[in-house]
Amino acid sequence: MKVYQAERMDEAALREFASRPRIDFTSILGTVSPIVEDVRARGDEAVKEYTAKFDRVQLDAVCVPIEELPAPQLDPEAAAAFDLAYANIRAFHAAQTAAPLEVETMPGVRCRRLARPIAAVGLYVPGGSAVLPSSALMLSVPAALAGCETIVLATPPRPDGSITPEVLYCARKAGVTHVLKAGGAQAVAAMAWGTASCPKVDKICGPGNQFVTAAKMVLQNSEAMVAIDMPAGPSEVMVIADTGADPVHIAIDLLSQAEHGPDSQAVLVALPGVDVEAVQREVERQCDLLPRAETTRRALAHSSIVQVGSKEEAAALSNKYAPEHLIVNCADAESWLPLLQHAGSVFLGRFTPESVGDYASGTNHTLPTYGYARMYSGVGLDTFQKWMTVQELSAQGLQALGPAVAKLAEVEGLDAHRRAVTLRLGLSSPDKFD
Amino acid sequence: MKVYQAERMDEAALREFASRPRIDFTSILGTVSPIVEDVRARGDEAVKEYTAKFDRVQLDAVCVPIEELPAPQLDPEAAAAFDLAYANIRAFHAAQTAAPLEVETMPGVRCRRLARPIAAVGLYVPGGSAVLPSSALMLSVPAALAGCETIVLATPPRPDGSITPEVLYCARKAGVTHVLKAGGAQAVAAMAWGTASCPKVDKICGPGNQFVTAAKMVLQNSEAMVAIDMPAGPSEVMVIADTGADPVHIAIDLLSQAEHGPDSQAVLVALPGVDVEAVQREVERQCDLLPRAETTRRALAHSSIVQVGSKEEAAALSNKYAPEHLIVNCADAESWLPLLQHAGSVFLGRFTPESVGDYASGTNHTLPTYGYARMYSGVGLDTFQKWMTVQELSAQGLQALGPAVAKLAEVEGLDAHRRAVTLRLGLSSPDKFD
Repeated sequence: MKVYQAERMDEAALREFASRPRIDFTSILGTVSPIVEDVRARGDEAVKEYTAKFDRVQLDAVCVPIEELPAPQLDPEAAAAFDLAYANIRAFHAAQTAAPLEVETMPGVRCRRLARPIAAVGLYVPGGSAVLPSSALMLSVPAALAGCETIVLATPPRPDGSITPEVLYCARKAGVTHVLKAGGAQAVAAMAWGTASCPKVDKICGPGNQFVTAAKMVLQNSEAMVAIDMPAGPSEVMVIADTGADPVHIAIDLLSQAEHGPDSQAVLVALPGVDVEAVQREVERQCDLLPRAETTRRALAHSSIVQVGSKEEAAALSNKYAPEHLIVNCADAESWLPLLQHAGSVFLGRFTPESVGDYASGTNHTLPTYGYARMYSGVGLDTFQKWMTVQELSAQGLQALGPAVAKLAEVEGLDAHRRAVTLRLGLSSPDKFD
Repeated sequence: MKVYQAERMDEAALREFASRPRIDFTSILGTVSPIVEDVRARGDEAVKEYTAKFDRVQLDAVCVPIEELPAPQLDPEAAAAFDLAYANIRAFHAAQTAAPLEVETMPGVRCRRLARPIAAVGLYVPGGSAVLPSSALMLSVPAALAGCETIVLATPPRPDGSITPEVLYCARKAGVTHVLKAGGAQAVAAMAWGTASCPKVDKICGPGNQFVTAAKMVLQNSEAMVAIDMPAGPSEVMVIADTGADPVHIAIDLLSQAEHGPDSQAVLVALPGVDVEAVQREVERQCDLLPRAETTRRALAHSSIVQVGSKEEAAALSNKYAPEHLIVNCADAESWLPLLQHAGSVFLGRFTPESVGDYASGTNHTLPTYGYARMYSGVGLDTFQKWMTVQELSAQGLQALGPAVAKLAEVEGLDAHRRAVTLRLGLSSPDKFD
């Protein structure tokens, strides 16, 4: 890990620090676009062919109602851990339910805002080498709570054509309605366009590799009429540590990000007095112990440590970087919160490693990466809803508000808009333009 | 207006009814992409050249702090109408402020969700032939309420290089910080990339023509790191009317949509007993009275009336169409609300023409069109914010939750994730892999 001093970083160096490794989507889009179009044209047949080609699995059925899949058998200890995670995620997301908003902006002018579920949603759960049932929970719990009628979970099949039991366990528990046994661009396209076996969805959520991300990008700008949750890049963590933070804990938190893959980003912001060399030694030592040491080391190669002179400098650096995950391993961690403006999820204090949010504290682990925490939220209940506004005027309300509306319509030269008010108020005649 | 009977529409006819006129973005993207790249490369100079070319205005300064522009002089009656609209819009959007959410999902596991403003936003207000100060209010009031530090309002300059006084009046009142005197793709690109005079923004909101929409689509998938509010298509209204609805009012509401432009959509859903011929006669008569009769008639040519047999059939049809604006001109309008799932904004009762929401009831008029009301919300306070989640575990909290987290990390094969917990709990040794 390279070490920098914040005070020696000028505006250009800060911008460089905050920028993420460039992803060239041009060649990926060239691969993905024909797949997306092919699935649009040929539906399930195309999905089967790509699954045979990329996943080396011959599918009989592409998308199936979840009740048609056999109940999975899980190790009881694992099942209990999933059950606890489910309860906490459900509790935190259920609390996000917004009460209907109602404001009488003027006497007789009643305005409301009501949440309505998105009818059909698609959830992408990565598979292949990794097993990621936690993503199944993080996506399907809020979708079911929001009241989505159709919830399609897409995940690549295992070599025997089955779905990872842990993923299926979570999907059943949360209330997924359909399982699409496919991954990659072909899965995203099947959900966006709909196929004979797969319902067409209105929104697609969830993390994925660059092919999945590229397919989401292509489809949100297409005729498929589909929204996506957010753009995605490699996962990342920033750890802010003070002298009270144990170097072993700092090191293992950085490593738990680095082990995700060679493109993961881990950044340590070291407050004055932190023994940076001790941290580096621990990073080496703990990394060597890991079965995934090789991969992890590749991520560390482009990770960095920045030494800062003050709390304010650390917070400014964090806001500039806008990390997906931000661990504040500091005394009086709560006092940092007002300074933090741009981060996906924040982990406060000595006893809050990122792992707890990745799995089971209750917050969602589907978070904006790549600096998109500046303007995107992580997945929440509202990811699966939209707002509908409502207004109702009484006769008195229209009498009070109408003349101003008519004036504004006149300013904008929209006469039918004006007359929709004045005809109702008897201020215009239906027989002539006035 | 063509007349259909809902009972004679099969699934294919319903799908056809709900689909909007196809917009071919391919050729538009071909025009827009080079402009977007040119503005990236040459900044203000490129914006000046495109403004000279498309708007026939030679700009001295491209983007200026709003305080440098002279205070606009407005007709007092118009100013009073804007002031009233401002007060109502502000009241309804201020009420959208979410209280911080806090849930203790387990003893010692405290989870929160906090709203944070998006630091810099760009607001596009169409100009050219039309004068649309109402859009300036609808975008800048929630942006300012959300706490955005930098609020750039872009709008095409008038022939003399100045900004429409009404737009400037609204922008100053609401708290816009910069005015970008440009329109089209060049304005959107300047805000997305930033130029010497224009701050780079994190999100771009607001309606626009197909060039503006195409530029937003290109940029949200680019390296500009910018989000957009929603995709956009032509404006549209659906009116559901019962026998108590005055044909004059039904007609003028349909026309107030049609007058926006030849691609506007107006649909009447007529409940049993509605005199459809009387409505058609009124549409003709009221249309002929309008100065914009020509344009309006072109929109009417592809608008339709659907006769339905019941309230439920009407609601199902509306949900299928997912209108931007939905007027329920029916007795007991409130009773319709639970049936309505997909609409941008709903106007209930005899005294609530769409005009009131377009200008001054308090709700936002920047709404999802083209069927996107199925999954997008209109602009609100949350358009200019994002959620940051926070978790903090006590030592006891980690003791309670940690073993489940460690188990789940084990299932997913992420050992550093597991050890970030077990090392803190003293269940693993830093000296060996266990």
